[in-house]
Amino acid sequence: MRKVYLDYATTTPVHPEVREAMLPYVYECFGSPGSLHQEGKKPREALEEARQQVAELIGARAEEIVFTSGGTEANNFAVKGVAFANQRRGNHIIASQIEHSSVLYSLKFLEKLGFEVTYIGVDKYGLVNPEDLAEAITEKTILVSVMYGNHEIGTLEPVAEIGRIARQRGIYFHTDATQVAGILPIDVGELGIDLLSLSGHKFYGPKGAGALYIRGGVRIFPFIHGGIQEEGRRAGTENIPGIVGLGKAAEMARKEMLPRRDRALCLRDRLSEALLKKVPGLYITGHPARKLPHYLSLCVELVKGDALTLLLDRKGIAVSPGSACTFAARKPSHVLKAIGVPLELAEGALLFSTGIYTTEEDIEYVAETFPAVVEKLRGISALKRCMQKDEPEQG
Amino acid sequence: MRKVYLDYATTTPVHPEVREAMLPYVYECFGSPGSLHQEGKKPREALEEARQQVAELIGARAEEIVFTSGGTEANNFAVKGVAFANQRRGNHIIASQIEHSSVLYSLKFLEKLGFEVTYIGVDKYGLVNPEDLAEAITEKTILVSVMYGNHEIGTLEPVAEIGRIARQRGIYFHTDATQVAGILPIDVGELGIDLLSLSGHKFYGPKGAGALYIRGGVRIFPFIHGGIQEEGRRAGTENIPGIVGLGKAAEMARKEMLPRRDRALCLRDRLSEALLKKVPGLYITGHPARKLPHYLSLCVELVKGDALTLLLDRKGIAVSPGSACTFAARKPSHVLKAIGVPLELAEGALLFSTGIYTTEEDIEYVAETFPAVVEKLRGISALKRCMQKDEPEQG
Repeated sequence: MRKVYLDYATTTPVHPEVREAMLPYVYECFGSPGSLHQEGKKPREALEEARQQVAELIGARAEEIVFTSGGTEANNFAVKGVAFANQRRGNHIIASQIEHSSVLYSLKFLEKLGFEVTYIGVDKYGLVNPEDLAEAITEKTILVSVMYGNHEIGTLEPVAEIGRIARQRGIYFHTDATQVAGILPIDVGELGIDLLSLSGHKFYGPKGAGALYIRGGVRIFPFIHGGIQEEGRRAGTENIPGIVGLGKAAEMARKEMLPRRDRALCLRDRLSEALLKKVPGLYITGHPARKLPHYLSLCVELVKGDALTLLLDRKGIAVSPGSACTFAARKPSHVLKAIGVPLELAEGALLFSTGIYTTEEDIEYVAETFPAVVEKLRGISALKRCMQKDEPEQG
Repeated sequence: MRKVYLDYATTTPVHPEVREAMLPYVYECFGSPGSLHQEGKKPREALEEARQQVAELIGARAEEIVFTSGGTEANNFAVKGVAFANQRRGNHIIASQIEHSSVLYSLKFLEKLGFEVTYIGVDKYGLVNPEDLAEAITEKTILVSVMYGNHEIGTLEPVAEIGRIARQRGIYFHTDATQVAGILPIDVGELGIDLLSLSGHKFYGPKGAGALYIRGGVRIFPFIHGGIQEEGRRAGTENIPGIVGLGKAAEMARKEMLPRRDRALCLRDRLSEALLKKVPGLYITGHPARKLPHYLSLCVELVKGDALTLLLDRKGIAVSPGSACTFAARKPSHVLKAIGVPLELAEGALLFSTGIYTTEEDIEYVAETFPAVVEKLRGISALKRCMQKDEPEQG
C-alpha cells in the first residue's frame, strides 16, 4: 500500500544532512561547551555556529537567540519570563483567543497568580483585528502575545501591524512562530517583534530543540533557573546534537525557503481543488490567502475527524484530526469555536499538511482515496442514525 | 599525546548501543507519539518502553516518570511545581546549602514571589544532619529538597533518614539525584522519596533528556504548560530519540551498575592514593566513604583550579575546576564554603571523575603527570609573588 504522510505540521523527519551534522556531537565531540578543557572547544564552537544560523533565519543577532527544548518551552519562557520580570510595571497581558495551548495554559497559570489577561477574538478567517488589540491596551499592559501562524487553520496574523502598535505603546510583543519559522521568511526587526518562539522539528530539525528570540534590552526572567548556560538565560547542559541539528535545519530552510514554499502552495492548491470538487459538504477553514503554504485545513460535514483520520490511516494516509496536536485532547477545538464553526461541523475537522517529501503522486492518491473514505463514513453514520431511530425509546 | 577524559561528572559520551537505539527515531520512525495514525505507533511504544526502563532504574512505576529536557528542568519542575501547587498549605521550603544551582536559583525565584526558604548547613564532609532538618520544619513547610549526591564533592546525603522525617511530618521530599541515578542503586520506595530528578547524559545517555519521578498522589503543577503530553504533566512534543536513548542508558546502567561501580572505586582509590603520596598540600574533599564512586574531588594548596585545569589540558588530561559545572561561573564555590574550606584553598579545587572508558593506564598517566603540573604552577605563582614584592609601592 502507498504511504502518504501529510502531517508535517505535527512533526517532520530529520533531514539526512541535518542528521549528519548532528552525529559527531553524539559521541566523538560529546563534551560540554562550558568545559575549560579541549573537549569543550568543538561543542562550544558548534553551539555558537548554530546560534548564528538560527539568528539568520529570522533576521536577528546571534546573541538574541536562546536555545530551548522546543517551541512549547519557548512559549512558556516568553510569557512567564516577561510577566514575572515586569510585574512592577503592570499585570495585564493581551493574547488572541486562538493561541497555542502552550501560550494559553501559561496565561491561565499566570491568572492564578494574579495576572489579568484579555483574550481578543478573531474574525471568521482567524484574523486578529489590530484595532481590537489597540483598544484592549491599558496602562497596566506589559505584554501582547499573538501567534504568527495558527497551528490549526494556518492563518497568518497581521504581526507587523501588531508589532507597530505594541512598540508605539511601549509594550513587549511576543509571537509564537512555531508553525512559521523555517517555512516563511521572517525579519524580527521589520516586524517589530520583541520575542519569537520557534521549534526545530517543524522544519526537518530534531525534536527537543527550539529557540526563543529575545530582542536585546527586553526585560525577562529566566524560565529554567540554574547554571550560567545561555548567558544565564536558560540553565541546563546544552543539548548540543539537538542544537547543531536545529542550526543546520535553519540554514537549509533559509536557503531552500522559496522553492519549498512554491512547491507547497502548488501541491496544496491541487489537493484543495480536487477535494472541493469531489466531496460535497467540505469547507476549507482559515484565511484563503494569508495562510501557511503547506496547510490545508478543512471541516467535513457529517463525519468525525477522528474516525476520518483512522480510516485514512488504513489507506496509508497520515493526517491530523483538526490540529497539529495530540489525539488524546478530545475537546472541541478552541480555534474553530473562535472562528465561529458550529460544533457539529468542527467535529469533522481535518488538517492536511505537506512537506518536502510530498509528491504529486501522493496528492493524486489522496484526491482519489479521500472522497470514497468520506462516503463510506457517512454511510456508516447514516446507518447508525437509522438504527437509533428504530430503537424503542426507553422511558 | 595521550588523551585522558576524567570529567564524566560533567558529561558522558553516548554509549554506542544507546546511539543505535536512538537512530531509528531520528528519521524512519520520526512520528509524534500523540498522532492517531500509524506513524505515531512506534514512537508511542518506544516512549512507554523508555518510561518503563527509567522506572526500573529507581524502583518506580512507569506512570510515575515524567520526561524532561534534563536534570535542571526536572529540578525546576519539582521545586516550583510543588511550591505553586501547595501554597495554600504553606509557603515554607527547606533545602541544604549545597544544592545544585538549579535548585538554589529556583528557590531564590520562589523567595521573590513570597515563599520562605530555610537553607540548612552541612558538616565538614558536606553531610546534612537529619536532626537539623527536623528542627527546621514548621507548620508551613511543604517541601524538603536535599540532593542525593553532591555535584562538587560527591558526598551522599542521608536520604533515607530525611525521607523518613519528611514522610512522618507529611511533607514532600524531593531529591536531586542527577549525579547518582545510573551510578548507584536507588529505590524510591525504600528511601521515602516523593520526587527525584535524573539526567541521561550523566550515565551515557544523550543530552537533552532527563526525568522527574513524581510519586503517585503528589500534588504538583506542571512546569511547562500546554498540550496533554506526559498526561498533562509536561507539555511539548516529546523528544523521542532523546527519551529512547535515556531509556536504553537506564537499562544498561541498571544491568552494569555493580561492576561499573566496583571498577570506579578501584580506579578512584588508586588515583587518590598516588596523588596524596606525590603532591604535598593536597586535600581530598567530601565524605571519605559516603561518596559517589567515580568522584575524586580535592583542593590543592597554592594553585588555582582554573590554571591547573588549563595546564592539565595541555597534557591531554580533561578535568573540571572544582565542580561539574561551567567554567564561566567564576564565583567561589558555595559548596566548599558550606563545608568550611578557606577561600584560598577553595580556589585550588579540582574534580576528577572516572567513567566506563577510563583505564588503569589513564590513571597511571595522571598520577605521573599531575605532580609535575602542580609543581610548575606553584613555581610560577611563587615567582609572581616575588615580583610583586619587588615592585615599588604606588601611593
